[in-house]
Amino acid sequence: MTDASTNMRLKLPVTCFILEIILIILFGALVEYDHETDAKLWHNQTHSDYDNDFYYRYPSFQDVHVMIFIGFGFLMTFLQRYGFGSVGFNFLIAAFALQWATLMQGFFHGMHHGKIHIGVESMINADFCTGSVLISFGAVLGKTSPVQLLIMAMFEVTLFAVNEYILLTLLGVKDAGGSMTIHTFGAYFGLMVTRVLYRPNLDKSKNRNCSVYHSDMFAMIGTIYLWMFWPSFNSAITAHGDDQHRTAMNTYYSLAACTLATYGMSALTAHDGKLDMVHIQNAALAGGVAAGTAGEMMLTPFGSMIVGFLAGVISVLGFKYLSPHLESKLKIQDTCGVHNLHGMPGVLGAIVGAVTASVATMDVYGEGMNDVFPEIVKGRSASTQGGYQALGLAITLGIALLGGAIVGVILKTPIFGAPPDTICFEDNIYWEVSLTGREVDSDFTEQRDLTLTPYGSPQRLKTHHQ
Amino acid sequence: MTDASTNMRLKLPVTCFILEIILIILFGALVEYDHETDAKLWHNQTHSDYDNDFYYRYPSFQDVHVMIFIGFGFLMTFLQRYGFGSVGFNFLIAAFALQWATLMQGFFHGMHHGKIHIGVESMINADFCTGSVLISFGAVLGKTSPVQLLIMAMFEVTLFAVNEYILLTLLGVKDAGGSMTIHTFGAYFGLMVTRVLYRPNLDKSKNRNCSVYHSDMFAMIGTIYLWMFWPSFNSAITAHGDDQHRTAMNTYYSLAACTLATYGMSALTAHDGKLDMVHIQNAALAGGVAAGTAGEMMLTPFGSMIVGFLAGVISVLGFKYLSPHLESKLKIQDTCGVHNLHGMPGVLGAIVGAVTASVATMDVYGEGMNDVFPEIVKGRSASTQGGYQALGLAITLGIALLGGAIVGVILKTPIFGAPPDTICFEDNIYWEVSLTGREVDSDFTEQRDLTLTPYGSPQRLKTHHQ
Amino acid sequence: MTDASTNMRLKLPVTCFILEIILIILFGALVEYDHETDAKLWHNQTHSDYDNDFYYRYPSFQDVHVMIFIGFGFLMTFLQRYGFGSVGFNFLIAAFALQWATLMQGFFHGMHHGKIHIGVESMINADFCTGSVLISFGAVLGKTSPVQLLIMAMFEVTLFAVNEYILLTLLGVKDAGGSMTIHTFGAYFGLMVTRVLYRPNLDKSKNRNCSVYHSDMFAMIGTIYLWMFWPSFNSAITAHGDDQHRTAMNTYYSLAACTLATYGMSALTAHDGKLDMVHIQNAALAGGVAAGTAGEMMLTPFGSMIVGFLAGVISVLGFKYLSPHLESKLKIQDTCGVHNLHGMPGVLGAIVGAVTASVATMDVYGEGMNDVFPEIVKGRSASTQGGYQALGLAITLGIALLGGAIVGVILKTPIFGAPPDTICFEDNIYWEVSLTGREVDSDFTEQRDLTLTPYGSPQRLKTHHQ
Repeated sequence: MTDASTNMRLKLPVTCFILEIILIILFGALVEYDHETDAKLWHNQTHSDYDNDFYYRYPSFQDVHVMIFIGFGFLMTFLQRYGFGSVGFNFLIAAFALQWATLMQGFFHGMHHGKIHIGVESMINADFCTGSVLISFGAVLGKTSPVQLLIMAMFEVTLFAVNEYILLTLLGVKDAGGSMTIHTFGAYFGLMVTRVLYRPNLDKSKNRNCSVYHSDMFAMIGTIYLWMFWPSFNSAITAHGDDQHRTAMNTYYSLAACTLATYGMSALTAHDGKLDMVHIQNAALAGGVAAGTAGEMMLTPFGSMIVGFLAGVISVLGFKYLSPHLESKLKIQDTCGVHNLHGMPGVLGAIVGAVTASVATMDVYGEGMNDVFPEIVKGRSASTQGGYQALGLAITLGIALLGGAIVGVILKTPIFGAPPDTICFEDNIYWEVSLTGREVDSDFTEQRDLTLTPYGSPQRLKTHHQ
Repeated sequence: MTDASTNMRLKLPVTCFILEIILIILFGALVEYDHETDAKLWHNQTHSDYDNDFYYRYPSFQDVHVMIFIGFGFLMTFLQRYGFGSVGFNFLIAAFALQWATLMQGFFHGMHHGKIHIGVESMINADFCTGSVLISFGAVLGKTSPVQLLIMAMFEVTLFAVNEYILLTLLGVKDAGGSMTIHTFGAYFGLMVTRVLYRPNLDKSKNRNCSVYHSDMFAMIGTIYLWMFWPSFNSAITAHGDDQHRTAMNTYYSLAACTLATYGMSALTAHDGKLDMVHIQNAALAGGVAAGTAGEMMLTPFGSMIVGFLAGVISVLGFKYLSPHLESKLKIQDTCGVHNLHGMPGVLGAIVGAVTASVATMDVYGEGMNDVFPEIVKGRSASTQGGYQALGLAITLGIALLGGAIVGVILKTPIFGAPPDTICFEDNIYWEVSLTGREVDSDFTEQRDLTLTPYGSPQRLKTHHQ
Repeated sequence: MTDASTNMRLKLPVTCFILEIILIILFGALVEYDHETDAKLWHNQTHSDYDNDFYYRYPSFQDVHVMIFIGFGFLMTFLQRYGFGSVGFNFLIAAFALQWATLMQGFFHGMHHGKIHIGVESMINADFCTGSVLISFGAVLGKTSPVQLLIMAMFEVTLFAVNEYILLTLLGVKDAGGSMTIHTFGAYFGLMVTRVLYRPNLDKSKNRNCSVYHSDMFAMIGTIYLWMFWPSFNSAITAHGDDQHRTAMNTYYSLAACTLATYGMSALTAHDGKLDMVHIQNAALAGGVAAGTAGEMMLTPFGSMIVGFLAGVISVLGFKYLSPHLESKLKIQDTCGVHNLHGMPGVLGAIVGAVTASVATMDVYGEGMNDVFPEIVKGRSASTQGGYQALGLAITLGIALLGGAIVGVILKTPIFGAPPDTICFEDNIYWEVSLTGREVDSDFTEQRDLTLTPYGSPQRLKTHHQ
């Protein structure tokens, strides 16, 4: 079933070992404990143990960690025959990306005497960067080999760090929850990659490019975890005190409003008023994405709910009316619909952030302005800050689209072992699926083998019920 | 398959949008950041960032949040054909209820110059109130439309806030983990609703009103998360310091003892000594419910274990011997058996709380008395406090039963689109279930369609083996 | 299907009730709140609420708690017909073990005027001890009755406490994450038990001793939770401040490196380059085990990654080449392959800890030395500390192997109701599995009953669709 090109016997081990060995060497040469994780440095000064940032951020870090490995991993298990690949490749590329991101972000965030200092905040940032890669993974899900995914992750992490550096460091843009740096970047990067990797004959695998009852249940595990912990995601690296508190709360209300909008729109856009799991699993999360930039600002719960509501509406409409055209007109095959969950809501979040920033006043923020908009305290006007926020969105889109195009071309290299058009969305090509397992799964996917017998064909059903 | 009345095409969107728009307007008019989430107010005073309640309570909040969305949601997925409805409607009504609860509780907990101030503690309280609604959901699971559920949530949240206000504010009753306000209230409210909605012909759907192997596995995800995080639930809003610490620990031991009692009783009450998943999934949690009132008191681990043990015994006996009679004699069709998990253990917890309060002494509590029983410090006698606790239980039962009856009548309105007796416990009526998915599920529920062919009938098995 | 000996109708209730009653009596006689959970003691002194250890450790405790109940529980659900037993018995023995461990560890860790004082740290230690029992459970999974498991837990917890006391208290060995005390002990104890319980005719159940597609998906839930929260596990009881921070970070990088090694080795050792779920589910976790001793030391991220990488390589090689020989040559039937996940990586972790300790210098640790190596501050040389660490490993292996042999003999007692060779790895013997459920599961395990009819034979499928 696997021909030479898709056989990972040597390709995957070589890629994994080379990458990990490079990582280990670079960590040995460049990475040091920061003053909060180093035994000697920490004990040099006298301070309360609570001054250690670990206690401010570790609970948030673990919530983010769950979103990355369980949230993203299981959200993508909706495909009937790709559960191993969804959770398993998510696991692999995330484990690689967080190490590589530590180096890339450490390099751009500023070295200390030629060394990268790491602690819980760098761990959170590494997970954030990884999230961006996993969003792109969603666009190409089922159509790429693990080697392609690792290569993509390596380049995407690097470009993510560059873009993040330009926005946060050079332009003084605020984007705590990453509407721009994480969601917009990851989505449009992935969409460009999948565009370049366009498969005209992908319909040869369309019988597996859908969910079954139990796979939708597994996917809901991912959805709910992402939904619950998004307040921690957006607040994980905001300033201590009111900022973390406010950001978490704004996101909480944005998501709640988004969920009602999603259910309403899902029923409204269905011909028979039945809810569509694709909308529930994805659009209900758009409120978290859209609150990623403005969540730390004085958006108010009222504002957060409006933003979340709009995000839910846009996302469902995207799934229903835009995605089909993206594929037919623009040849963008977006497996998970990341454009609807991360792309458009990310852009919305960036715009909301720009507007909210442009109306920031000392009267509202008081001394807290320094936490949220240090540049404004340093003299930049609120409207200018808003302009920089908008500029940040434009730069993010530019780097994501250009980078995605280049990386897409690189990934076309046949040696990376992409699956043939007839065996996409199929675990059996890269995973050992026991005969029992195969049969089992065949049984409940109505699929006997990898030939393309259409699912539940009428006469089959008839005989089935005779 | 869906006739006009159960078609949600317009009913659900209209309900969701009207409710959310009302929420947004009221939030805009009434809700403000409290001094810990407002940038200006927080920075007005000088204090350590750790003084922000966020760091005391956010980890507990997230555990509670997981219980509400994963715990309750997956606990109810035990039904073979109602996984989407269990997790999905749980998600919808919880997202609505937490917003509505913010307003109702804020209103009763005291306005500040006409404004409701919110922060992490109000978020926890909103989740608590939501939990109560989800308990009632368990009683009517599979027999109600999403519109009915949203209407029920709106009324129940309101009555919850009234009852909570009477108990905690007017009577000075202690109920940190909500044995009374959350569990007893939610259970008896839901039982009364399902009584009013009694369906004499529900047995037409009985072939779907049971679990299958994989659905019991999904349900265990809910059970285990509820069990693990119950210590966080009961301690989430207790006083800082020893109180949170003690409450979590008491609950931890109560649950452990309850689990052994549950396994023992489950085997003992089975004719062939085989464990029943229904008991494990539910009764093992009764120890958390029963520790909801006394958990913050000086119950001692010893006392907690006795309470947990009793709760487990009562709960299993309820499932085995009481539930059948509730349906046959009292016409109460309690899908999830909430009477056994939340009803009786809730009452037990209230009684334990009253007794524990009535023996409270300064000798045992010392200065800590002010955290646990401020009324006693203010002069109320311990026995009087115990009396008030008992009174709180009586009031809770009264409001729950009366409220449930009224709301049940309201929910009978045909326009709300309840499913017919023949299509209860069935996702396909409100959810898009792909043909593949249907077939799949049919395949593994032995159910060909929505007619009532008995499951796994012998001759079917025979032919099945030819 | 269940004969007298395996009927749990009386055996399980008697065991559960006697054990729980003994626990309750002993708790009543011996257990008291510590000064951080007792209302009076805590309020006797003036201090910040944050001084309460609850706020330092409760988030870590909950992560550990999730690993014990969800992580271990679901990791073992990979068996096609043993999902109830994996999660359910894990739940039962863990609930018992954490209570019993509280007493045993409290006894050995030092009584206060004849009383055991408990709080969040004792809760974490109880969960740790429980983890060790669950590792042993993995070795005998599917071949033991719940009564046997409770008896095993009772003895193992006791021996665990003895071994832990010798290492940590008498020898001053450091083992914060339990590479020795938890993983090595649990693995070799369990391996010895399963050796004594050797079943020459176990192949009569081999048709159920494997996974199916959906059971591998459930198992991944366990794997990912163990992987994500391992940093919390290793850092849960290390000293406040830099120690907890550093330990979590070292573990984070060790696991990431381990994951790449696992994927590489899994593909490399497969004849067709396909990834094996057994490796991904287990070997990817070896990095956490191997960082259990040295994680709190100044191992550096660089060192942690090397350790994790080696652990992953060793673990996959163990599954591929060692396990088969353990069964054929040494008659060790290790259901979950705990030797590869906990045994060898645990020994590796112990060795790494000994080496790291032997090179500890004040120049590196500064004032922090007192947190990590108090014995060295008291005058013990680093190399001596390393020697003690190695001695700790030897003692652990000795107690585990000897204890496992004795307990194995005890468990052979027929009355404990072990399943016959023909009905191992089968839920139906101890669990009520509804006919529907049976059929369902039959349907997707292709297994009609407990005979060995080959799976998914063509004509079966045909008749199925007639």
